[in-house]
Amino acid sequence: MKIGILSSGGDCPGINATIRGVGKTAINHYGMEVIGILNGFSGLLYKDVIELTDPSLSGILNLGGTILGTTREKVFRKMITSPDEKDREQIKKCYHELNLDGLVCIGGNGTQLTTWMLSQLGLNVVGIPKTIDNDVYGTDVTFGFDSAVNIATEAIDRLHSTASAHRRVMVIELMGHHAGWITLFAGMAGGADIILLPELGYDMEVILEKIKKRMEVGKAYSIVAVAEGIKIPKRKERPAIYFAREIEKQTGFETRETVLGYIQRGGSPSPYDRNLGTLFGGHAAQLIHEKKFGRMVANIRNEITDVPLKEVAGKLRLVTPDTPLVVQGKKMGISFGVR
Amino acid sequence: MKIGILSSGGDCPGINATIRGVGKTAINHYGMEVIGILNGFSGLLYKDVIELTDPSLSGILNLGGTILGTTREKVFRKMITSPDEKDREQIKKCYHELNLDGLVCIGGNGTQLTTWMLSQLGLNVVGIPKTIDNDVYGTDVTFGFDSAVNIATEAIDRLHSTASAHRRVMVIELMGHHAGWITLFAGMAGGADIILLPELGYDMEVILEKIKKRMEVGKAYSIVAVAEGIKIPKRKERPAIYFAREIEKQTGFETRETVLGYIQRGGSPSPYDRNLGTLFGGHAAQLIHEKKFGRMVANIRNEITDVPLKEVAGKLRLVTPDTPLVVQGKKMGISFGVR
Amino acid sequence: MKIGILSSGGDCPGINATIRGVGKTAINHYGMEVIGILNGFSGLLYKDVIELTDPSLSGILNLGGTILGTTREKVFRKMITSPDEKDREQIKKCYHELNLDGLVCIGGNGTQLTTWMLSQLGLNVVGIPKTIDNDVYGTDVTFGFDSAVNIATEAIDRLHSTASAHRRVMVIELMGHHAGWITLFAGMAGGADIILLPELGYDMEVILEKIKKRMEVGKAYSIVAVAEGIKIPKRKERPAIYFAREIEKQTGFETRETVLGYIQRGGSPSPYDRNLGTLFGGHAAQLIHEKKFGRMVANIRNEITDVPLKEVAGKLRLVTPDTPLVVQGKKMGISFGVR
Amino acid sequence: MKIGILSSGGDCPGINATIRGVGKTAINHYGMEVIGILNGFSGLLYKDVIELTDPSLSGILNLGGTILGTTREKVFRKMITSPDEKDREQIKKCYHELNLDGLVCIGGNGTQLTTWMLSQLGLNVVGIPKTIDNDVYGTDVTFGFDSAVNIATEAIDRLHSTASAHRRVMVIELMGHHAGWITLFAGMAGGADIILLPELGYDMEVILEKIKKRMEVGKAYSIVAVAEGIKIPKRKERPAIYFAREIEKQTGFETRETVLGYIQRGGSPSPYDRNLGTLFGGHAAQLIHEKKFGRMVANIRNEITDVPLKEVAGKLRLVTPDTPLVVQGKKMGISFGVR
Repeated sequence: MKIGILSSGGDCPGINATIRGVGKTAINHYGMEVIGILNGFSGLLYKDVIELTDPSLSGILNLGGTILGTTREKVFRKMITSPDEKDREQIKKCYHELNLDGLVCIGGNGTQLTTWMLSQLGLNVVGIPKTIDNDVYGTDVTFGFDSAVNIATEAIDRLHSTASAHRRVMVIELMGHHAGWITLFAGMAGGADIILLPELGYDMEVILEKIKKRMEVGKAYSIVAVAEGIKIPKRKERPAIYFAREIEKQTGFETRETVLGYIQRGGSPSPYDRNLGTLFGGHAAQLIHEKKFGRMVANIRNEITDVPLKEVAGKLRLVTPDTPLVVQGKKMGISFGVR
Repeated sequence: MKIGILSSGGDCPGINATIRGVGKTAINHYGMEVIGILNGFSGLLYKDVIELTDPSLSGILNLGGTILGTTREKVFRKMITSPDEKDREQIKKCYHELNLDGLVCIGGNGTQLTTWMLSQLGLNVVGIPKTIDNDVYGTDVTFGFDSAVNIATEAIDRLHSTASAHRRVMVIELMGHHAGWITLFAGMAGGADIILLPELGYDMEVILEKIKKRMEVGKAYSIVAVAEGIKIPKRKERPAIYFAREIEKQTGFETRETVLGYIQRGGSPSPYDRNLGTLFGGHAAQLIHEKKFGRMVANIRNEITDVPLKEVAGKLRLVTPDTPLVVQGKKMGISFGVR
Repeated sequence: MKIGILSSGGDCPGINATIRGVGKTAINHYGMEVIGILNGFSGLLYKDVIELTDPSLSGILNLGGTILGTTREKVFRKMITSPDEKDREQIKKCYHELNLDGLVCIGGNGTQLTTWMLSQLGLNVVGIPKTIDNDVYGTDVTFGFDSAVNIATEAIDRLHSTASAHRRVMVIELMGHHAGWITLFAGMAGGADIILLPELGYDMEVILEKIKKRMEVGKAYSIVAVAEGIKIPKRKERPAIYFAREIEKQTGFETRETVLGYIQRGGSPSPYDRNLGTLFGGHAAQLIHEKKFGRMVANIRNEITDVPLKEVAGKLRLVTPDTPLVVQGKKMGISFGVR
Repeated sequence: MKIGILSSGGDCPGINATIRGVGKTAINHYGMEVIGILNGFSGLLYKDVIELTDPSLSGILNLGGTILGTTREKVFRKMITSPDEKDREQIKKCYHELNLDGLVCIGGNGTQLTTWMLSQLGLNVVGIPKTIDNDVYGTDVTFGFDSAVNIATEAIDRLHSTASAHRRVMVIELMGHHAGWITLFAGMAGGADIILLPELGYDMEVILEKIKKRMEVGKAYSIVAVAEGIKIPKRKERPAIYFAREIEKQTGFETRETVLGYIQRGGSPSPYDRNLGTLFGGHAAQLIHEKKFGRMVANIRNEITDVPLKEVAGKLRLVTPDTPLVVQGKKMGISFGVR
């Protein structure tokens, strides 16, 4: 059997661990031939590939980024959805010219949708969910999330001393366009006093009350963690800048913002993410060996398993008011900006 | 309601996060009065306690160690098992003089056993599992484990460059008297070539073959991760020293050992452990509120729940050949020292 | 002898190590009595002080922030420069009511100026330079700088993987209103391709050329490190945002910005800063013991010494084209944005 | 001009930064041709070399280990000191067959001695000092030292919580066969209570007194940092094990040891070491360009300069009782184990 592996979408710690997991399992356990497809789905079109051997997969377990490169797959997806049958034939032709018996696609929500479309074209595909945002539907957790939470929490830890020295409010904006998972987990782990998530919305009065009350009872400072995807009046403004300005204006307390940005995506994956990527990769190789195509690898209730791409592709997994960490945070007196 | 919290047994990152989780939930959500019992069970006997308020629980979420202190509970447990009824009456007397409606005991296997014994004496107790070793029966994971795996993995990461520069074998000994969880998770995350666990045993021939074969195919070096609890001929010798000496003697390759030791127990807890401790603490407070005593908080299949102390106390959770990370490691060509 | 210690100005890793260095040396070696003055110079006016003993100084060596608190000293400095003699008498009165034989003031450029003014009022003062920016005149290095460079470099390290995965330009803005030291040191240590410093200015054409040339020769991405104090057309805009927008517009390459912000000030000091703070603190205690007042502790050519506040107060130490790291960077092909 | 670069001796963070510094300066500034000589001096004999270009030197700045490999140079040095003239001719022949105009040798004390011997054979050599131990004579600091101190200090930081939880004495053994620099700097930065250095010796009575006195005045625990090179009765025993056993036996306090070992050598260099390596590398390229051979690059009083190999080769730089950090430590009440 010959399989291909590709990574697509944004950078995320643990992609290389996952590629290694697929590759070493396929080669050493199933005796498969393995190629790496470069720069996401575009490498499939241009047949831009490299051979992957056991030695070539050594030493990448703890590397950030992806040895295969990645791109956004917009052009590629348009080919699939194009009314012109030729486009789809072109994709199939490329796939078959590579003599692939299976293709593992590592990526986030967009990639899982594209992978499902390829499955409908008759390609033997398996998806592996990857995103620091943890918002891929069908799996409880994606690799990259734990690493991002670690970086974000360390940043909040650092803000504590600075905030305390000056009796300040510090607003930190964390990644998450649709889902507030990073902000929830890092906010709780970092001891934020107010945690604002796109899914729960916010009431500015509640936020201001909380801050004033903290200052009244003598708390030296307040930390606000906010997800980048939260809706604010001006669409183009950074949420951290908006909230910092409003809080300072309406409470009179000195307020400063930090936008953590891309450093949440980079660097060496955490041990948790390396092991999750390794297990995901191994399971993908097994699915191909067993010819179970059209499925996405998943971690459900702490078990490595798989779900039909058909049922999960394109859907988002979001925080709800029932999410245990939200419920627990409320009990402890942490504000989520809503009554 | 008035509750007490104590920590017992070895140091472990996340105890303070857990104390905070119990205390802030009890105070802010359930309106309980909370005291901290100092130095483990001995503080119960000597009524050595401090009041815990919401402000006194601020700023400890990311601190290593325990603000309540801890001790080994041997003397205390002997009092419970003593044939002299007076000893048991003494314990009950102390508990009642503190006017406690509930007592939360944070500790490892030994502590859970003691907690269960207290339950049998009629005390209203709830246990929270704590150990870096992750070997508490009845829960899939304990706080402290993720932090220990992070430290151990970082150490293995560092050994890679040193080993590579000299074509060496590096043996690293990690904590785990009975259970190899840290060694398994850090070994896999750190890219160890050979992982030796107390539960699986080892065959020296298999180890030597693996090392020789790696050198034959041109791999520059080998990394061996071994749990301290593995059985070796001389009982008093350090496993790392034993394996390093044997490997060097029998393969001729320069071999060096590292015993990571107590630094695995110390320092700030990982975000994962902080959140796990927070959720565990909150659940313990809820159990006391609901008067569900004699139970241990647990994480089972990624859900925070609880189990009867009666069924779990004193039992160990160990690695088995079916543990997914072992199965996956074998598929990838990692040696567990057994055929 | 009785001495006071205060910290003033922005937060900076290593203040507590310095306070401990002054205090433990004063108490254990010189047998002095030591008090901590809270919240900067304002604590002097309000006689808001705490006693500092050897045990009270234990455990703070590696803590971020300052156990004494800090404030901006604007009000206080106005009192000194006020035409009304009463204000100055008030300050002297407070100082004498505290029965101080000497006062150690830990702070940045502003604080050193204030300290010098106090010296002119006849107070027995010694200054210790503190700033992450490393721009205090009269010393080669200040504590806090190494810690800030470590944090900034780690952030640049993380950007490499993210940039590489997408063939992007990443712009990172680092602290430094007047001086580019953090950006120079972290930029060089992080392997930035373009380093923009307030002291050297920039020519947008040079920057664009460099980026285009890198892409032409097949370099996958470019990293631009820019100090917050660099002059850009719109005064209120963030430099990172300005450069990212211009680069993307004028080269067509996808460009993203990161503003690292306050996390550069927080957290545990690096070992280097802890030792520098300890040595600075010890030297300050010695100066007071020797009644050498009106001086600032300094590190000059790697020796702990002191300089007259008169000669250094209020002056800035800036990067020049001759700074060795600039010269070396240019030789290696790194662009400083100027011809 | 054509130059060669080699690294020799033990692993040390910053070698790659230094190779990059030499190479990029030589190529981009001086227009030299550059080759890398593999596996230390043995690559010179076997003409085992690779071409180094600007792109091949990208991405290695923050990597641990050395892209050129390294070996102990014993065999090679014997050839130089052999009575047989042929051996020396062989070395010169190899050097000339590589058409080298200069050779940069990166290594510790042993390497500097070998480099000096090569100079006496008429080869155009320049040495760059490299060692985590910081004991190369002729330079105030070597790259690798700051990184090792960071790792060692972090380990001591971790021991504090564990020691405090149990009222323990913790003994940590750090690297340094001859010189106690790592132990001195990490011990001071980590807040060790007793610091034992090979250069100063120790009096067991002084150590025991200190520990007992700390416990008497209510200090919860004690931390002892000891350099591996300190002399103890049994030559083959680990100093940490010796001191832990003696302290426990003679004071009755529970005492545990940690031997940090090889992890002090591994991993990514600190920003300080990256910049020092970069500056050292650039200066070496300049020396070759200026045909100033037979010299070792050095950092003297914070200036990058160079010294004659003749005067420094084979000598050690050691801690003395006058070393500022020792003097300051004593003033603060830290014990160095001597009266």
